[in-house]
Amino acid sequence: MTESENEIKDTGLRGVKVASTRISHVAGSEGKLIYRGYLIEDLAKNATFEEVCYLMLYEKLPGRKELEDFDRELKRRRGIDPQMLAALKTRPADSLPMDILQGGIAFLANHHPHPALLTRGNELDNGLALIAKMPTLMAAYDRIRNGKDPVDPNPDLGHAANFLYMLTGKIPDPEIERMFDICLVLHAEHSFNASTFTARQIASTKAHMYASISGAVGSLSGELHGGANERVMKMLLEIGSVDAIDDYIRKKFESDGKIMGMGHSVYKTKDPRAKILEPMVQKMGERTGDPSWYEIAITLEKKALAAFEEKGKTGIYANVDFYSGAVYYLMKIPVDLFTPVFALSRISGWIAHVIEEQFAEAAPKAMLYRPSADYVGEYCGPAECSFVPMDKR
Amino acid sequence: MTESENEIKDTGLRGVKVASTRISHVAGSEGKLIYRGYLIEDLAKNATFEEVCYLMLYEKLPGRKELEDFDRELKRRRGIDPQMLAALKTRPADSLPMDILQGGIAFLANHHPHPALLTRGNELDNGLALIAKMPTLMAAYDRIRNGKDPVDPNPDLGHAANFLYMLTGKIPDPEIERMFDICLVLHAEHSFNASTFTARQIASTKAHMYASISGAVGSLSGELHGGANERVMKMLLEIGSVDAIDDYIRKKFESDGKIMGMGHSVYKTKDPRAKILEPMVQKMGERTGDPSWYEIAITLEKKALAAFEEKGKTGIYANVDFYSGAVYYLMKIPVDLFTPVFALSRISGWIAHVIEEQFAEAAPKAMLYRPSADYVGEYCGPAECSFVPMDKR
Repeated sequence: MTESENEIKDTGLRGVKVASTRISHVAGSEGKLIYRGYLIEDLAKNATFEEVCYLMLYEKLPGRKELEDFDRELKRRRGIDPQMLAALKTRPADSLPMDILQGGIAFLANHHPHPALLTRGNELDNGLALIAKMPTLMAAYDRIRNGKDPVDPNPDLGHAANFLYMLTGKIPDPEIERMFDICLVLHAEHSFNASTFTARQIASTKAHMYASISGAVGSLSGELHGGANERVMKMLLEIGSVDAIDDYIRKKFESDGKIMGMGHSVYKTKDPRAKILEPMVQKMGERTGDPSWYEIAITLEKKALAAFEEKGKTGIYANVDFYSGAVYYLMKIPVDLFTPVFALSRISGWIAHVIEEQFAEAAPKAMLYRPSADYVGEYCGPAECSFVPMDKR
Repeated sequence: MTESENEIKDTGLRGVKVASTRISHVAGSEGKLIYRGYLIEDLAKNATFEEVCYLMLYEKLPGRKELEDFDRELKRRRGIDPQMLAALKTRPADSLPMDILQGGIAFLANHHPHPALLTRGNELDNGLALIAKMPTLMAAYDRIRNGKDPVDPNPDLGHAANFLYMLTGKIPDPEIERMFDICLVLHAEHSFNASTFTARQIASTKAHMYASISGAVGSLSGELHGGANERVMKMLLEIGSVDAIDDYIRKKFESDGKIMGMGHSVYKTKDPRAKILEPMVQKMGERTGDPSWYEIAITLEKKALAAFEEKGKTGIYANVDFYSGAVYYLMKIPVDLFTPVFALSRISGWIAHVIEEQFAEAAPKAMLYRPSADYVGEYCGPAECSFVPMDKR
């Protein structure tokens, strides 16, 4: 196994198949993303986030009655305990929202009667609680840090509209609601990405759902992962106008040569989610009378792609983070909530993966993830060091 | 690479070298554990936990002045913010302590002026804060859940004694202090175990120290990992007397065939840490006038080893979790704090790994950990499913 070891070391496990999964498939060379058999384009066009959550957890699209029941189960779990709100009120106003979410999810376990009961049914219950409560938690913190009272969940609203309502206190118009819903559908799942692998890895030790998902949120917070959508928006704000794009690209190519939100480790075509998000930025620009962000983004993408090709780097297209930030920005979602919003969607995939890791017969994991490493700490040559007493150091 | 893929899938990455490390080496077949060149036996005999933390972070044993400065840096970070205590006071008294620790660590980021500044110096500062504050956090929660006031850290005490003091309000006697200190030394680091791999994986996305360590705590909480020491003690309590051992082993061999705390995925000899802990259980038994737990443990180990050998399974020896639980129990540490105590020690290794993952030139990681999976979700045969509208489901 020596040769494969050498191939694997320091590659971040890229291309290494660590398990089987029935959850999703990213066909990178064809630019296809498939959730449990269904193409992302079909789901974005026809399904709500609730239907996608059902598909993730029960492996089929729900019938009308099934969806009604599922919706009711989610709605009755939306509220968070007053003691949870009290905990959020202790948090400094300049806390990073992803830290609040990571800590808050671990603390949500404290309000479940038996969070660590590792049955499939209980883990599903934990998972439903998280889908339902994470938006309430995040919206409540955003209001608290702004000196406002949290807004209770509204059972007349669907999942997407309810989050925007709890954030702003206003019921969003149906077109905004549907666009936000589509954003949630697009971000729901993406195979063994870093945060999902974190969730599975934690779950593989037989830790419970809250522990696994809290860890996944930590992983998503990194700028190389979910933190990218926030950074794309900051980049667009920094560029500020179409005229400044050439200069920006030139400077970036002189420094680290990276453009935020361009390129993907799996897709070798344009990210299929970016294709759906791009016209949404345009539409939001028209609605709000502010087409500038669409113009900057679309021009930046074209010029950056060309600049990469000039350097011999082909296939550096826009990814999902490139356009989602601008959509959220035009919806007036605070920039530092973009990555938490990503988490509010990806939770559906994470839960499916935790349950697959712990219970699925189709894709059983033999044991916890415990890789090896190559010890290169030759502090005293190949032999161990002799202990040196304090007085002789 | 097809052959190595097949070898890797569903094996939990066992034996797969994913990176280089200078931090520690587990020579499983020889039963050796080495922290940055030094044998665990030498460190347990001669070094304090503070010296081991210094060794982990600065790659050498400290001189007297260096240790004094380091100790001062830790002591001045021990206190936790009143708002952090306020958050702990919102937590239900029946919360799982590992959930409190996982959430609390993420929330500790809120009290650092710039937790996400990803420089080596700032991550080290975050790490020192965590070594210093985790015991304070955990002891405070234990007192709060028992209706007592938290005890402020005592700067006259070393790290080990201070934790026991904050937990009980009493300064421990020097022999107990040193034994607990040795327990912290023994659990400080163990290469790419599941929680450490989680910490590295989260850090690989450029998430900050708190996010990475909080996730590692989640991973450690699983019963297949750090949760085992608590379960060993529960097993010993269930067995209750030497006379009941034969029966217990027989019943376990009829069901899942596993004895908690026996066997290790890496060691093929007796775990070197168990060898050091075993006489500590005996000594604690003598001190407290309660030798029964030592007798039960030592007899269970011998009989279980023999029973495994009879089944053709050789080398199923006691591991670190087998004896640590009994030591903590005799020190009157609550059973559900055994795994948190493991975390208060392992933090030193986790921090070294996060920093190695993010900054070390000697062992650079090319990118975040993002493995692949084998998609076996043939919901509609090898082709994608056609979307079915709601009315036709």
